[in-house]
Amino acid sequence: MTDPAVPRHNLRIDGKRLWDSLMSMAEIGATPKGGVRRLTLTEVDKRGRDRFRALCEAAGLTVRVDAIGNMFARREGRDPARQPVLFGSHLDSQPSGGKFDGALGVMAGLEVMRSLNDLGIVTEAPVELVNWTDEEGSRFGHSLMGSGVWAGVYELDHARALTDPEGISVGAALDGIGYNGDAPAAAFPADAYFELHIEQGPILEREGKTIGIVTGAQAQVWYDAVVIGQDSHAGTTPPSTRKDALVGAARIIDLVDRMMRARGEDGRGTVGQLVVLPNSRNVIPGEVRFSVEFRHPDETEIDRIDAQFPREAGFIARDCGVKLELTRLFRIPAQPFDPDCVALVRQATEQLGYTAREIVSGAGHDAVYVARHVPTAMIFTPCKDGLSHNEAEEIKPEEAEAGGQVLFSAVLARANRVV
Amino acid sequence: MTDPAVPRHNLRIDGKRLWDSLMSMAEIGATPKGGVRRLTLTEVDKRGRDRFRALCEAAGLTVRVDAIGNMFARREGRDPARQPVLFGSHLDSQPSGGKFDGALGVMAGLEVMRSLNDLGIVTEAPVELVNWTDEEGSRFGHSLMGSGVWAGVYELDHARALTDPEGISVGAALDGIGYNGDAPAAAFPADAYFELHIEQGPILEREGKTIGIVTGAQAQVWYDAVVIGQDSHAGTTPPSTRKDALVGAARIIDLVDRMMRARGEDGRGTVGQLVVLPNSRNVIPGEVRFSVEFRHPDETEIDRIDAQFPREAGFIARDCGVKLELTRLFRIPAQPFDPDCVALVRQATEQLGYTAREIVSGAGHDAVYVARHVPTAMIFTPCKDGLSHNEAEEIKPEEAEAGGQVLFSAVLARANRVV
Repeated sequence: MTDPAVPRHNLRIDGKRLWDSLMSMAEIGATPKGGVRRLTLTEVDKRGRDRFRALCEAAGLTVRVDAIGNMFARREGRDPARQPVLFGSHLDSQPSGGKFDGALGVMAGLEVMRSLNDLGIVTEAPVELVNWTDEEGSRFGHSLMGSGVWAGVYELDHARALTDPEGISVGAALDGIGYNGDAPAAAFPADAYFELHIEQGPILEREGKTIGIVTGAQAQVWYDAVVIGQDSHAGTTPPSTRKDALVGAARIIDLVDRMMRARGEDGRGTVGQLVVLPNSRNVIPGEVRFSVEFRHPDETEIDRIDAQFPREAGFIARDCGVKLELTRLFRIPAQPFDPDCVALVRQATEQLGYTAREIVSGAGHDAVYVARHVPTAMIFTPCKDGLSHNEAEEIKPEEAEAGGQVLFSAVLARANRVV
Repeated sequence: MTDPAVPRHNLRIDGKRLWDSLMSMAEIGATPKGGVRRLTLTEVDKRGRDRFRALCEAAGLTVRVDAIGNMFARREGRDPARQPVLFGSHLDSQPSGGKFDGALGVMAGLEVMRSLNDLGIVTEAPVELVNWTDEEGSRFGHSLMGSGVWAGVYELDHARALTDPEGISVGAALDGIGYNGDAPAAAFPADAYFELHIEQGPILEREGKTIGIVTGAQAQVWYDAVVIGQDSHAGTTPPSTRKDALVGAARIIDLVDRMMRARGEDGRGTVGQLVVLPNSRNVIPGEVRFSVEFRHPDETEIDRIDAQFPREAGFIARDCGVKLELTRLFRIPAQPFDPDCVALVRQATEQLGYTAREIVSGAGHDAVYVARHVPTAMIFTPCKDGLSHNEAEEIKPEEAEAGGQVLFSAVLARANRVV
């Protein structure tokens, strides 16, 4: 008899079956350029959910749906008193999304369940595979909605009242596709949560690592900036009287980049969105509106940035003779993952012999909100050229298999641990 | 008997009549915010033209229209062998334009004619007041169209085939409002051209000068720039692998400003239009498209800029790991005005006792094209806060009168000069 606390790394998932299930799910909402458009709570999402439910039920799982549409597919364990080990991700996509963002974690979770069945394993604790609603936020403007409501970050009523550009509410959309579930949309006691996801960045690929052992999520601070100058004629206005909002904005963009680079490879600082008014060749811009965000694994660096950036950006604006209105939209604290859960991922990776590195998640993930209530860890796998949120998103079958295998081993170890 | 070669500066225009005629013209196409929308060759422009023609005919002038819609209102001189002295500007406006841009030069020209009548003056040379078609270029995308065709800068057929966003051609629009004239749209021999215009910049107001003696128009070079980087996730992409097109663009915008300022108060360098792709908060910009223009009174400075800017912008792009595609759209040579005509403006200004300074036109004007064929000068008057192409454009009645008075004196001196 084997010791249930020791993961048995000769137990293998079926990599080909995992890949086939990924390719099959990618047919739902497939785009001509090889990507996926499976916007949350649409008819296409319903087809993905229906397929997922059918596959779960065929694997003997019991599916329940909560009031924000999160789906939980449960496999009972030997000990009914134990809290479940959760794992999963999301099946919704960006408008021009890829085949693997979210779907990898869900379909690999299904493969974990199928492999447990094949291997005749009854875990000590029950296990539950989750499909979180609306991770992407593309339709209703609110990312991590399902996990956010579940974790109590957002009120259920607030989330259900959000509307898409056509005025359809989340509540109406849930009713429309039949996923307005009976289960309460609130955190329940759980033993752990594991999420496998593509990295959505270039680090693992560049370093030739198969697995990213995710130790936590970055702290973030986001701002809206408006630089106000004075529209005037580009040909007649001399340098001394110009109040060029775009020159001011340009120097603040440069500041964001320099502040990022001063913090080395862990720094993140981005101006992603920028609009110029009146945006005419012949007119000195009178107003520029743009977004600013900084991220760092170390929260004290975000504290420093949040003190330094508004001050230095203000100096630049003053030097340029323009006015800066800076609004801090939000700060997200760093979210370290649970050391025991992270250790299980590390242990599985080592015992399976995969190359790996520790990594901090730069993107937001459902796991970040779940981690507020449940011991959590994430597993990253590489993606080609670091591309995601893009129809060209690509991973290799062996990368999907490695990620699924680590997920399987970590879940099994956690569900069978001696408590 | 007075010597006709000596301007008689006791001869005065009627400042109140000029202001009333400006306010009356401003009613045609008046906007709620106090500006004017009199787009070229529309029904509103027709009403302005019809009013102008009626006022000219009431003043005893003979109006002819050429094949691009330019209107010439002629007052005969004593000597039929002499070439006419031309003066005028344009009655069309920007979509949200002001009451004075163009209209000042035309209505002041009418006041010159009326004052000649009142004073019983028969000039030696004939005089002609011009309303050039489509100076603004807002409707058909081609500024200085009427004067450009007249001067041979553009082909008549090319201009008549241009279409507005609704697909209506210049030719059809001319027919539609009845201003497809019989006269050839081509330069004819003329003795001089004078144009009074608001400065559209802040220099005269700032220095407290009543009159700008315009010595010429700036040389210009215009570029289209495209910076190409790589879209990627703002949270996951580390500094070393970023190819941020907006950071590259920002540093090139800073370069444009620095190159302008290195040339002192005569320098002009502007990025007026800029678009970011994909323009999402969360995505490092993969592409930025923007306009660049430089102007300088001294053509050799534009030569230097045209050598320096592409090279230095290329260095910046290389440093930022992005690609720069720079297209030179056009170069406009500096256009010095005729020294004798400029001297007449200077002389009139001095004899009338107005404060004045010499100035180079930063904006394009019909006078710049006319100057290729006819000895030309311009007169500037201040405008409030240097604002133009804006409904808030404003001048004072005494400023209009001073400009009109200088125009009258210069025209009279030129038309009566001994040849």
